[in-house]
Amino acid sequence: MVGGDIDDLPKNAANYTALTPLWFLERAATVHPTRTSVVHGSLRYTWLHTYHRCRRLASALSAHSIGLGSTVAVIAPNVPALYEAHFGVPMAGAVLNPVNIRLNASTIAFLLSHSSSSAIMVDQEFFNLAEEALRIWSEKNRDNNKSFRRPLLIVIADVENRDPKEVRCAEERGAIEYERFLESGDPEFSWKGPEDEWQSIALNYTSGTTASPKGVVLHHRGAYLMALSGALVWGMNEGAVYLWTLPMFHCNGWSYTWTLAALCGTNICLRQVTAKAVYTSIAEHKVTHFCAAPVVLNSIVNAPPDQTILPLPHVVHVNTAGAAPPPSVLRAMSELGFRVTHTYGLSETFGPSTLCVWKPEWDSLPPETRARLNARQGVRYVGLEGLNVVNPKTMVPVPADGATLGEVVMRGNVVMKGYLKNLKANEEAFANGWFHSGDLAVKHPDGYIEIKDRSKDIIISGGENISSVEVENVLYSHPAILEASVVARPDEKWGESPCAFVTLKPGVNDDDDDEQKRRRLVEDIIKFCRSNMPAYWVPKSVIFGPLPKTATGKIQKHLLRSKAQKMGPVPISKL
Amino acid sequence: MVGGDIDDLPKNAANYTALTPLWFLERAATVHPTRTSVVHGSLRYTWLHTYHRCRRLASALSAHSIGLGSTVAVIAPNVPALYEAHFGVPMAGAVLNPVNIRLNASTIAFLLSHSSSSAIMVDQEFFNLAEEALRIWSEKNRDNNKSFRRPLLIVIADVENRDPKEVRCAEERGAIEYERFLESGDPEFSWKGPEDEWQSIALNYTSGTTASPKGVVLHHRGAYLMALSGALVWGMNEGAVYLWTLPMFHCNGWSYTWTLAALCGTNICLRQVTAKAVYTSIAEHKVTHFCAAPVVLNSIVNAPPDQTILPLPHVVHVNTAGAAPPPSVLRAMSELGFRVTHTYGLSETFGPSTLCVWKPEWDSLPPETRARLNARQGVRYVGLEGLNVVNPKTMVPVPADGATLGEVVMRGNVVMKGYLKNLKANEEAFANGWFHSGDLAVKHPDGYIEIKDRSKDIIISGGENISSVEVENVLYSHPAILEASVVARPDEKWGESPCAFVTLKPGVNDDDDDEQKRRRLVEDIIKFCRSNMPAYWVPKSVIFGPLPKTATGKIQKHLLRSKAQKMGPVPISKL
Repeated sequence: MVGGDIDDLPKNAANYTALTPLWFLERAATVHPTRTSVVHGSLRYTWLHTYHRCRRLASALSAHSIGLGSTVAVIAPNVPALYEAHFGVPMAGAVLNPVNIRLNASTIAFLLSHSSSSAIMVDQEFFNLAEEALRIWSEKNRDNNKSFRRPLLIVIADVENRDPKEVRCAEERGAIEYERFLESGDPEFSWKGPEDEWQSIALNYTSGTTASPKGVVLHHRGAYLMALSGALVWGMNEGAVYLWTLPMFHCNGWSYTWTLAALCGTNICLRQVTAKAVYTSIAEHKVTHFCAAPVVLNSIVNAPPDQTILPLPHVVHVNTAGAAPPPSVLRAMSELGFRVTHTYGLSETFGPSTLCVWKPEWDSLPPETRARLNARQGVRYVGLEGLNVVNPKTMVPVPADGATLGEVVMRGNVVMKGYLKNLKANEEAFANGWFHSGDLAVKHPDGYIEIKDRSKDIIISGGENISSVEVENVLYSHPAILEASVVARPDEKWGESPCAFVTLKPGVNDDDDDEQKRRRLVEDIIKFCRSNMPAYWVPKSVIFGPLPKTATGKIQKHLLRSKAQKMGPVPISKL
Repeated sequence: MVGGDIDDLPKNAANYTALTPLWFLERAATVHPTRTSVVHGSLRYTWLHTYHRCRRLASALSAHSIGLGSTVAVIAPNVPALYEAHFGVPMAGAVLNPVNIRLNASTIAFLLSHSSSSAIMVDQEFFNLAEEALRIWSEKNRDNNKSFRRPLLIVIADVENRDPKEVRCAEERGAIEYERFLESGDPEFSWKGPEDEWQSIALNYTSGTTASPKGVVLHHRGAYLMALSGALVWGMNEGAVYLWTLPMFHCNGWSYTWTLAALCGTNICLRQVTAKAVYTSIAEHKVTHFCAAPVVLNSIVNAPPDQTILPLPHVVHVNTAGAAPPPSVLRAMSELGFRVTHTYGLSETFGPSTLCVWKPEWDSLPPETRARLNARQGVRYVGLEGLNVVNPKTMVPVPADGATLGEVVMRGNVVMKGYLKNLKANEEAFANGWFHSGDLAVKHPDGYIEIKDRSKDIIISGGENISSVEVENVLYSHPAILEASVVARPDEKWGESPCAFVTLKPGVNDDDDDEQKRRRLVEDIIKFCRSNMPAYWVPKSVIFGPLPKTATGKIQKHLLRSKAQKMGPVPISKL
């Protein structure tokens, strides 16, 4: 035995540095100063530009006493300023709060107030929205006899896409234009990494599939580790060209904002995501990777020929998470030549933290089997130390039988610090030393997990659990259906029964005026379901019409659930 | 301001796990249980096998009370047991000490005693060496009236390559055979990761280019981070097939032992490294990556045609570190189709921690320029937070002029804890908050560093510094020279002058009997030097003969320096 000796060598300044993704940027600027870091329309920045711009931002924020403990909100689509904020804000020691641009003013007012934002960077398109949110916040404070300190307001001009009048108007109302703000900062600002890697780097509010947003607080340590893990498990190498289809405000672009700096890659910004823009960017910028919610994949697969550029000029890797993409969509993407990696995670885990690792021996399986295997959420990222499916009460893991439902739980270094100012939610989320995802899954004999549903998305019909996701998967394979979402509707006989909300593919006749045709289509869908699922899964109600979605393309099931509730119970006689 | 709130969320079991590469192995066994993990001759293990074997090892060690604070020495070439020890030993909580197999018994006795090894795993070929080391250790203790507790002795049988009699003989002398030892352990042993990521994982003694070995203590945190960084900067992806040309006992195979588990890749073991074995393995196992000291590259480049398999069946990535490989060797490797990445580091930085990042725009440059650019040591790995070239007294960085010499200093998370039981060495190594490499370099205008020499390898001639490496680079481009090493020799006129030790390429006539031919060859070499370097760099002495080397192929300059000293000063009249 060595005694204490061999462990008795304390940390010092030479062998211990707080982990933070900020050093990636300094490295990119040193190694590839002239490589393109960010593309936005005709705008091009190099890594040296980006580094200087981020230091200017940090410097300018510091000059306004924004630093340790401050929160800076950004309300913007995928424009360069939002990318820069992912470095510039924490370089000032502050916490970045990227806000979902599709929220309404009162929700944004809640976020700004809850996070006590000291500054707001807002894209010119959303300036009025930000002003309205500030008005609501200040009025609420006045009503509650609380003082209100107006945050620093910075308007981001987008000369590529927008009318300069909007910016002038914002300036007249007291905002400082972003480029002018940067000019006030020092490009050689001597920023410091965090003293403690547990320091907060970002605050991401969970988006509206549940009623009240929770503020997910993320740490520098996890951001560093997820940035590297996200590259490693996806085979994303130095110099990757990444297309920003996924909003950066969605969990910091699943931490890929920081990955791109670690890889000295190139960020292709996109204000508006359309199938055409995706195909054009792939061809023009040699895009190698992008992330997208299943709804975006859907639009890529179903794009009219004049909006596509096919065959693809090179391999394009796609990381898709969120709800399980229907096997039919996975299959179609694969046939077009995209290599789809299916991942799963939450804002609480810095974005996706499990993935369906593809095995070479699956290459020769039939397409349906391949799609079914790839639709699973799989195994943990390298950066996540623990993943299991358990009985959430007893914490006993479910058997790996592909059938027994349990809750997905995770632990490790890419799990959030906790929810901001929400003791109760933290206690629930961290019960028994694991993070509780709230998602229900099975574990297959090969160890891969497969999400069956959000806890609240389970439909309980006649005492039997029905996974709404499985019903949706069948619906997606119906030739007329573009999108489907299934929720519980009260049912006189069964308590609850599945209610399907669907949108149809372009060209399918669902003319409101032709009741007979609609009825025939419903009957056809029901018949299709009967031959592809257990009888008790078959939706008793089928409703046509557009589906409500969050900014990230998640279907807002809670709205559909309310709708189904309001429809009243399915009568006993029905069907 | 949020006040303390946003940082006031403490760590818990769900969101904080001590970083350690051990979880990589658990993950590999879960994700790819049936993929080949280790190949050794006709032997094949899968990742599930390897995981179970490592758990057995940890379990069996624990049963012998070997755990936290214990050190386990391994004396073995690149066989599976040494790979397994990189996981099994720390899974028991102990520290791995992989011993250089080319050391002599008395040096090994020093290491075992200095590290107070509780157990020794020894390959059957080296059993006598280990016994002799133990005898010396026990006698030293007896002479000093210290008690001696004989460590647990485990002999590793290699049925692929060696005579079983050696093993039986070792067993008769009290050793337990490794496979029997594993059988005594539990394959489901519930190992635990370290409580603290600062815990020691390995102890690597610096090898013999200096007189007294120092014990470099490495931590779990750095091993994790280096394992990921090493993959990321080298573009090494999931499923890489790695050939063990580099000894694992050399700084844990530059931490690639752990990387391979993170990537669920395949380890190809090699007991003996020859050019033929390298080429055969590449073809047979589809090797994608290997690491090698320049001397191995040299033998690959100069292998006779019947020992090569060319053209290469696929791209093979080579990571070469150690002394700067001569540009001529880099060029030849590139012409054969190997993609050589030039790196630099020390045991103190978990292996290479800087690399010459290749830029696409260099592809079109002339071969000489490409080789010259690639011979530089470059920029920091992602895992290293700080790298600079400074005046070691004032810590002022040298200008990026490609000319001013300074010391390479590093800081960050892939720097060792320190040297074991060596306060003075630690003070020197960590002076002023940086790790001092002892290597002298310049910084080029593009920010890339280039090592010019070890401090002690500088030749001071007439008050001018001469870099022995630069003289060697010129010698390597001479058509008759295979290897060259240049050291200082006393000089009556100049104080010191360069003395070149060289070996010649096969077929070059250096017949001892033909003094005239040798003299002509020396004259030719001197003439070649005159036309390719400043006059004062030209070696005044040229000696033919084999060069002494360490196990990792580093030329032992200290032996050549002694030799040059013993030759006495160059007389004034000479040349």
